[in-house]
Amino acid sequence: MNMKEGVGENSYAKNSSYQKSILSRAKPFIEETIVELYNRTSPQCLTIADLGCSSGPNSLFVISELLKAISVVYQKLGRRSPPEFQVFLNDLPENDFNTIFKSIPYFFKKFSSENGQEVGPSFVAGVPGSFYNRLFPTKTLNFVHSFYAVHWLSQVPQGIENNKGNVYLARTSPSNVYKAYAEQFNRDFSVFLSLRSIEMVIGGCMVITIKGRRSLNLPSKDIRYFWEVFSKTLSDMVSEGLIEEAKLDSFNLPFYTPCTEEVQTIIQSEGSFDLNRVETFDVDWDTSEDYVNREFVCDKIKSGKFVANMARAVVEPIFVSHFGDSTIEDLFCRYAKDVGEILAKERPMTTTLVICMTKNETS
Amino acid sequence: MNMKEGVGENSYAKNSSYQKSILSRAKPFIEETIVELYNRTSPQCLTIADLGCSSGPNSLFVISELLKAISVVYQKLGRRSPPEFQVFLNDLPENDFNTIFKSIPYFFKKFSSENGQEVGPSFVAGVPGSFYNRLFPTKTLNFVHSFYAVHWLSQVPQGIENNKGNVYLARTSPSNVYKAYAEQFNRDFSVFLSLRSIEMVIGGCMVITIKGRRSLNLPSKDIRYFWEVFSKTLSDMVSEGLIEEAKLDSFNLPFYTPCTEEVQTIIQSEGSFDLNRVETFDVDWDTSEDYVNREFVCDKIKSGKFVANMARAVVEPIFVSHFGDSTIEDLFCRYAKDVGEILAKERPMTTTLVICMTKNETS
Repeated sequence: MNMKEGVGENSYAKNSSYQKSILSRAKPFIEETIVELYNRTSPQCLTIADLGCSSGPNSLFVISELLKAISVVYQKLGRRSPPEFQVFLNDLPENDFNTIFKSIPYFFKKFSSENGQEVGPSFVAGVPGSFYNRLFPTKTLNFVHSFYAVHWLSQVPQGIENNKGNVYLARTSPSNVYKAYAEQFNRDFSVFLSLRSIEMVIGGCMVITIKGRRSLNLPSKDIRYFWEVFSKTLSDMVSEGLIEEAKLDSFNLPFYTPCTEEVQTIIQSEGSFDLNRVETFDVDWDTSEDYVNREFVCDKIKSGKFVANMARAVVEPIFVSHFGDSTIEDLFCRYAKDVGEILAKERPMTTTLVICMTKNETS
Repeated sequence: MNMKEGVGENSYAKNSSYQKSILSRAKPFIEETIVELYNRTSPQCLTIADLGCSSGPNSLFVISELLKAISVVYQKLGRRSPPEFQVFLNDLPENDFNTIFKSIPYFFKKFSSENGQEVGPSFVAGVPGSFYNRLFPTKTLNFVHSFYAVHWLSQVPQGIENNKGNVYLARTSPSNVYKAYAEQFNRDFSVFLSLRSIEMVIGGCMVITIKGRRSLNLPSKDIRYFWEVFSKTLSDMVSEGLIEEAKLDSFNLPFYTPCTEEVQTIIQSEGSFDLNRVETFDVDWDTSEDYVNREFVCDKIKSGKFVANMARAVVEPIFVSHFGDSTIEDLFCRYAKDVGEILAKERPMTTTLVICMTKNETS
């Protein structure tokens, strides 16, 4: 999974306000974890990896929050000088690193003018590669952060050919499909943990924010609703002869939204990390809408477009590679309309999990 | 200075065979240095920086040679397993890192199939920034490599407004211009050394390959000849009214070709590095030409084009930003012709220096 590159109308860079809104909710846990880590270990250089950084303004937002948090505490702790920071921004090789790299000089200029000179020397590097492979040398990372990336699986689960008409888990999905998705996440997240465990120093911390679900039982409304709208839009296009039925039937997203219990079980069973906390919160689909005293949006066209643009920025490459370039404009236009109809009647939410862990001495 | 991006006809990627030919000459010194470093220190992870990596196939060529060299020796030395490698590819933020990053998976696949599994886990990161600034945390690098980059100055020397009609040092340059260029290199190279000295571990090694000159005395033929052809081409375009005279008069390249003695003096005076050796060699302008028993090229049009394309891939961005987009095609076409005329009559060379140093304990 790579985001749509560049800075154009449908790019991830221009449609990441939803992510930003989730990120502000996760921020206190990220800050608290890195400050605790710094207090406890006081390294001369804090080596930080951001896994699945993408290429929007959010790529450097987390970094700036981490630098600020440390610059506030190092003086309180009586340290004479702030630590150095080495920040590794990771994403797939197809990610638009050029756009991030060009923005770095401006970012640091703006950062110093807003925060004074209280931050130590900071060094940014880009690391291309999948986080389901090794990315860093042994025991070199103090802090690992990953935002809205680890819910993407390494591949579509095998043996789910019978999930016809759906692009993800849905009410009509057969039970083997539910099982296959859960098992794929179990394997992928275990691999992710064991690789990071090699790369991190003992006592190092990791904070992972992912899409999740509230309820342990499958099926549950929150996990499938968002992608079920896509299935509906695509089915309409199949009925109108715009997309072949077989194309839709063979399409499934490499994506999974675990609940807290699943995450806890995997972390415990993999064994390299102590789970410090899992926070859960729900956010409206349209994060730009003001819902005071309402149970639905005021402007369904505007809200539908907002949600569709946000989804498009994330999944356009994967849809294009399966359905082809020519259907995309129509698909997202229809999707915006379908989403708008739902938002005019009810107020669906998505669930987010923030998982905070410490690398233990098992190694 | 950044190279022309992408993989098109005039890109650096497609016109780096000259650099490749120089690189093969420098290779034995680079290999010998890293093998000696590994024998002496045997780190669990060799942290390597390539400063001014650019975006052509050469970016990963050096890395593959280093990995191969180590994989040959670690077994001879009785080490049970090869070291890990962390490789930082550095260039200016405008460099085309995306193209390098996309080629990395293929590079490692090809590398393993050609060299077996005898190489340890290798991790590549991109580092955007000028090597005249800090790029890495304190004492983290074991080996620093820089190829054909450090002859680029941080800026055009000040106070050389009287170097009219020339784009670099030339026979007609006033003596203050010679002095200003030498002093700018002295300052820049000293800064370069002192920054790397902070970033490298004690005992770490650095190998720098740059354009240089044979003779201590200025002016000497080899340092100015190559760019004097540019001055001639541009002057012709001024006479024909295609370029304003003032535009040419105000243009000077941020570039310097030191001789061995200058480099020695600066390294000694900066004090952080012990100079192990400086190698010097000369290479024909047209590295593709077979000169057996000849003193000039056979095909002046082909050779002129070869040299012009190679120069264009390196300096196009700097020429475009000064003279504008519209003159470039014409300029390099004329330049190819002018170079061809010279190569049909004589056999000019450029000089290259390979400088091998070890970080000492002064810190």
